[in-house]
Amino acid sequence: MHDMRALQYRTIGSRPELVEIDTPTPAPGEILLRVTAAGACHSDEFIMGASAEDYSFKPLPLTLGHEVAGTVEAIGEGVRDVEIGESVLVYGPWGCGRCYSCAKGEENNCEKGMRAPGIFTDGGMAEYMIVDDARHLVPLGDLDPVKNVSLTDAALTPYRAVKSALPKLTPGTTAVVIGSGGLGHVAIQLLKALTQSTVVVLDVSDDKLAFAREVGADHTFLSNPDAIESVKGLTRGLGADAVFDFVGIQPTADLAAKMIRTAGDIVVVGVASGAVPIGQTTVPLDVTGRAINWGSRIELMEVVELAKRGAISIHVEEYSMSEAPAAYERLHAGKVQGRAVVVPTR
Amino acid sequence: MHDMRALQYRTIGSRPELVEIDTPTPAPGEILLRVTAAGACHSDEFIMGASAEDYSFKPLPLTLGHEVAGTVEAIGEGVRDVEIGESVLVYGPWGCGRCYSCAKGEENNCEKGMRAPGIFTDGGMAEYMIVDDARHLVPLGDLDPVKNVSLTDAALTPYRAVKSALPKLTPGTTAVVIGSGGLGHVAIQLLKALTQSTVVVLDVSDDKLAFAREVGADHTFLSNPDAIESVKGLTRGLGADAVFDFVGIQPTADLAAKMIRTAGDIVVVGVASGAVPIGQTTVPLDVTGRAINWGSRIELMEVVELAKRGAISIHVEEYSMSEAPAAYERLHAGKVQGRAVVVPTR
Amino acid sequence: MHDMRALQYRTIGSRPELVEIDTPTPAPGEILLRVTAAGACHSDEFIMGASAEDYSFKPLPLTLGHEVAGTVEAIGEGVRDVEIGESVLVYGPWGCGRCYSCAKGEENNCEKGMRAPGIFTDGGMAEYMIVDDARHLVPLGDLDPVKNVSLTDAALTPYRAVKSALPKLTPGTTAVVIGSGGLGHVAIQLLKALTQSTVVVLDVSDDKLAFAREVGADHTFLSNPDAIESVKGLTRGLGADAVFDFVGIQPTADLAAKMIRTAGDIVVVGVASGAVPIGQTTVPLDVTGRAINWGSRIELMEVVELAKRGAISIHVEEYSMSEAPAAYERLHAGKVQGRAVVVPTR
Amino acid sequence: MHDMRALQYRTIGSRPELVEIDTPTPAPGEILLRVTAAGACHSDEFIMGASAEDYSFKPLPLTLGHEVAGTVEAIGEGVRDVEIGESVLVYGPWGCGRCYSCAKGEENNCEKGMRAPGIFTDGGMAEYMIVDDARHLVPLGDLDPVKNVSLTDAALTPYRAVKSALPKLTPGTTAVVIGSGGLGHVAIQLLKALTQSTVVVLDVSDDKLAFAREVGADHTFLSNPDAIESVKGLTRGLGADAVFDFVGIQPTADLAAKMIRTAGDIVVVGVASGAVPIGQTTVPLDVTGRAINWGSRIELMEVVELAKRGAISIHVEEYSMSEAPAAYERLHAGKVQGRAVVVPTR
Repeated sequence: MHDMRALQYRTIGSRPELVEIDTPTPAPGEILLRVTAAGACHSDEFIMGASAEDYSFKPLPLTLGHEVAGTVEAIGEGVRDVEIGESVLVYGPWGCGRCYSCAKGEENNCEKGMRAPGIFTDGGMAEYMIVDDARHLVPLGDLDPVKNVSLTDAALTPYRAVKSALPKLTPGTTAVVIGSGGLGHVAIQLLKALTQSTVVVLDVSDDKLAFAREVGADHTFLSNPDAIESVKGLTRGLGADAVFDFVGIQPTADLAAKMIRTAGDIVVVGVASGAVPIGQTTVPLDVTGRAINWGSRIELMEVVELAKRGAISIHVEEYSMSEAPAAYERLHAGKVQGRAVVVPTR
Repeated sequence: MHDMRALQYRTIGSRPELVEIDTPTPAPGEILLRVTAAGACHSDEFIMGASAEDYSFKPLPLTLGHEVAGTVEAIGEGVRDVEIGESVLVYGPWGCGRCYSCAKGEENNCEKGMRAPGIFTDGGMAEYMIVDDARHLVPLGDLDPVKNVSLTDAALTPYRAVKSALPKLTPGTTAVVIGSGGLGHVAIQLLKALTQSTVVVLDVSDDKLAFAREVGADHTFLSNPDAIESVKGLTRGLGADAVFDFVGIQPTADLAAKMIRTAGDIVVVGVASGAVPIGQTTVPLDVTGRAINWGSRIELMEVVELAKRGAISIHVEEYSMSEAPAAYERLHAGKVQGRAVVVPTR
Repeated sequence: MHDMRALQYRTIGSRPELVEIDTPTPAPGEILLRVTAAGACHSDEFIMGASAEDYSFKPLPLTLGHEVAGTVEAIGEGVRDVEIGESVLVYGPWGCGRCYSCAKGEENNCEKGMRAPGIFTDGGMAEYMIVDDARHLVPLGDLDPVKNVSLTDAALTPYRAVKSALPKLTPGTTAVVIGSGGLGHVAIQLLKALTQSTVVVLDVSDDKLAFAREVGADHTFLSNPDAIESVKGLTRGLGADAVFDFVGIQPTADLAAKMIRTAGDIVVVGVASGAVPIGQTTVPLDVTGRAINWGSRIELMEVVELAKRGAISIHVEEYSMSEAPAAYERLHAGKVQGRAVVVPTR
Repeated sequence: MHDMRALQYRTIGSRPELVEIDTPTPAPGEILLRVTAAGACHSDEFIMGASAEDYSFKPLPLTLGHEVAGTVEAIGEGVRDVEIGESVLVYGPWGCGRCYSCAKGEENNCEKGMRAPGIFTDGGMAEYMIVDDARHLVPLGDLDPVKNVSLTDAALTPYRAVKSALPKLTPGTTAVVIGSGGLGHVAIQLLKALTQSTVVVLDVSDDKLAFAREVGADHTFLSNPDAIESVKGLTRGLGADAVFDFVGIQPTADLAAKMIRTAGDIVVVGVASGAVPIGQTTVPLDVTGRAINWGSRIELMEVVELAKRGAISIHVEEYSMSEAPAAYERLHAGKVQGRAVVVPTR
């Protein structure tokens, strides 16, 4: 088959490179997608930041891209119920499909570990991509692939976080979101769409707080210890019913622990080294803490439905395939607003 | 490949026939099982009882058998994570694998309908059988296939029924099982293993009630309107917290409606034409009724774990392949005790 | 104490009468409310329609009114944590307070039966009313009592109905409301506030359907058998994920049974003699039916929070105490739009 | 009224003293119990260990005893549905009765804080005791008060812990209990009664492990870092599905964090300064941590039902009223086996 362009991480410590490689062919059971959009994620930077000893992902070279949309180009033998031309999102946390977690669709918690594309196998930052099984394709319908490719991670992860706390978020409660960035700004929209709770957002600058209000925050405060009293002031002194920490460093974990109410929920989403101390003398009683990881298959389907209803939308910067290295430079420099998406067909 | 023996339903209105057919070969994505045991079920009789107009299953001939155990004999291309020789049960309610219900493992509620083996495609009442996808294999470990093949239906279905009512069955509550036959006698064991409820069983003869006590019933009564007062007498006049109807005719549905307490659960499992009338003036307030259908993938896994712990066991009559037609005659005549299982290797 | 005016049902078969009676004094543990608003409900007509043999409520005379708002006028000895002047709603389904159902706040399912005011004891269609225990007072805050008194029943009951089906109403699902009257028009608002489901409303006339669209319905259809295909057309042929029947007659119960999808929820709220037949051959598999009754204490609190956020509002016709008999005449004649509320202070 | 004997904490830093005080009289809404048994708890020692500055409980003198059984001796005005002579347990975490938490029976999480007897008001380590409201009485039926008084705390607390993790403890899972003392030895029995999980117990000496096996443990290990590999060895390398930490110091919290599997539950019950660090890099993904506090009203009712069925029993040392100070000396010295119970009538 003819060659295709792909963005690969090829050498430990280097930056990703735009290369020409063979277009893959789907083996039995596999699907070949023509990629319509691929999102660049901070965790790609995390992978490329690992030292040679710590690098535990696909042996190099690795085609990046774990947020992928595409159309079905070809199917391997034995694939059922998939139509050529179908527009789909790729459910990223590929599991074994047979273990207890996979059997309920929580492949993100697969007992054998995930083999996610763009991380443990070649991903979608390329013109074409192989998907290992039809079950990892979620119909996108008429939704625009570029605007919606990041539903697969930047919306799926906060959705799982918010959904896990819904039983606590009965009408009249208060939810706090710490960090209004790529995932946090979706969490705010999700809370407005799915609850009748007051949504409070903490972040480190006034322009980020203004952005938070733009996407739905009811109240915003600078993310510092004064915010504890601000939240208690909004909640008759009781504290927040749920806190979502999209930063994950120790100072934000400590804020969460100090502003949560008795029997509240703290959900840690930000991948950093902070931790909420759950114990009898460290948080109010009956408090629950969770560390959320990506999402399940039906959660991605539900997120797509929310996008179809216009209940959530993700801020996107669009790049062509040849601009992909530049997109990662901006990501590396912390300059991306929302999500950087590469469109290989451009 | 060489021929194999199979029990097929070949002509509308006739009895099943033992025939020699080609041993199938697994296509890509499929698995060939050497069948170690296959259960005969009343629903096979239901299929064979349909008139030509009503017959809506696999075009004849149909190899029977939707309760199947086997060892992996061969795998088609593209099958991953399956080992030759692995001892497995077949999860029967095959769905599309991609819809919302399938994505959470509830293939029994597949949006496209089930294509269960032995019903909508050839089943396991044969020396070999094709399974369409690795996700439909559940490891059996060291469990005896003959004694445990019926976990796939005769235990899975009552397990789903009981599990759905567990939130109501807190310690000290009372559960009623109507019908202690193939599925009911497993339900009794499940209630004893999973709850601290008092288990009451209703059936139509003293020997059936004796059998119910043998497998764990705390109280037994003949299944007639007097049982309503007997159950109320055991429950301070309130009625049962849950009633499981494994018969499903109108008289048992009416019994359920009359002996359930306020906010109780009625679960209808027996496939017959009866129905529990759920309305403001027909049952106590806040009562819930459900009509359960087979089970989900994780429910089958949980049932296997219960069998491994010895928490449930199914009464089995064992038949060789050549005795299979005779087994169905006994089933037809209502003479089978527990479950009739055919062992094709004998 | 001086006399007060009250609307009483005094003679079987007669209409309610405006009378002067002694203002009651709170015994130990009781609270005296100065009534600020009392709602007239169809179930009052049901009570007054009972024949002498069927009448099973408070021995006459009975002061009507089970939807009550008031301010605390006086408290009996031993009452704690209640302040004179506090503006409150009365939680109506008074239970014993000690049984298992009451211990979780579901006094509507009290094991000893409810002793609701206006039904089993004197109610709030009067200038003053006795509440038996402080736990039955829910703070109303700054909300207008007249506009919000009917939260206690006309909103609480549909709230319990909708909340019970929330697990099925994930994003992208479809909910059907049959009947857009006093309770149904609140259910529509609740579904819009609490779910990302498409809301379909069935009713018997075009003006009722126009009203349904006004309060939020996405689609409306006349309530007849054609509606089944209309709902299937909106749901890829699958049927509705939940149906709420606020009429409760057999034709609406049958509609619900025919338009529900596999594993869907049917909730019967309308008090009439219809019933949904839950069985293996009468509804799609895994369907659940429930007959809802009023609501729990926290459900009323949650409803008040929804009103505070403006998420729900009830259409109200206001009457003075002396107009109360006329209000019941209009109710009797089916002429009330939304809810008739009597304001004893006028 | 005549005098009664009571065990009081009278001076900061001193030991409890046996004194004669006035027998109290029930005010309106209150109940006077004749105490049949009162349990001595480690938290009494915690109260008496507080310095003058840290002491935040009832101003001295304080009659000890928050685990209380009794018979109803007299009732104040306005008390309904309580019978003289009724044998009851006292639900200890008295809340306001009106807030959202109390309205669902979770008075242990009362928004206004608990006013538990023996801690914030006079308790039951006396011949008679006042209970503030009928809702805090749970019928004991024919159960022996001495053997069952500690259901109110030593069983209620682990019950809430175990119940909160039941959704994770499906058949075939593994639960770890750290600490087999007063609460832990009940947790072991609860896990055996309510789950089909393998129960593993960690403790610091061989005789404690022998005791754990006696009450039902399937496997026991010394509580040290080697136990991590032992638990992984029992769980195909995955780790425990739930860990209950009844010690609560940092070393046990760290054990829990290291032996839990992906998506598992850690419940911290032991009151000490340890904490489980919940974060993206500190525990496996999707792990939940909770810090449990006493229990709800229905949870105490469920615990009583378990005792009635013989599913749990608490090891008890019995003391007369005059021996009460000696009982506390043994408790202080760590010499009590199970629970020390004072019987004021002896």
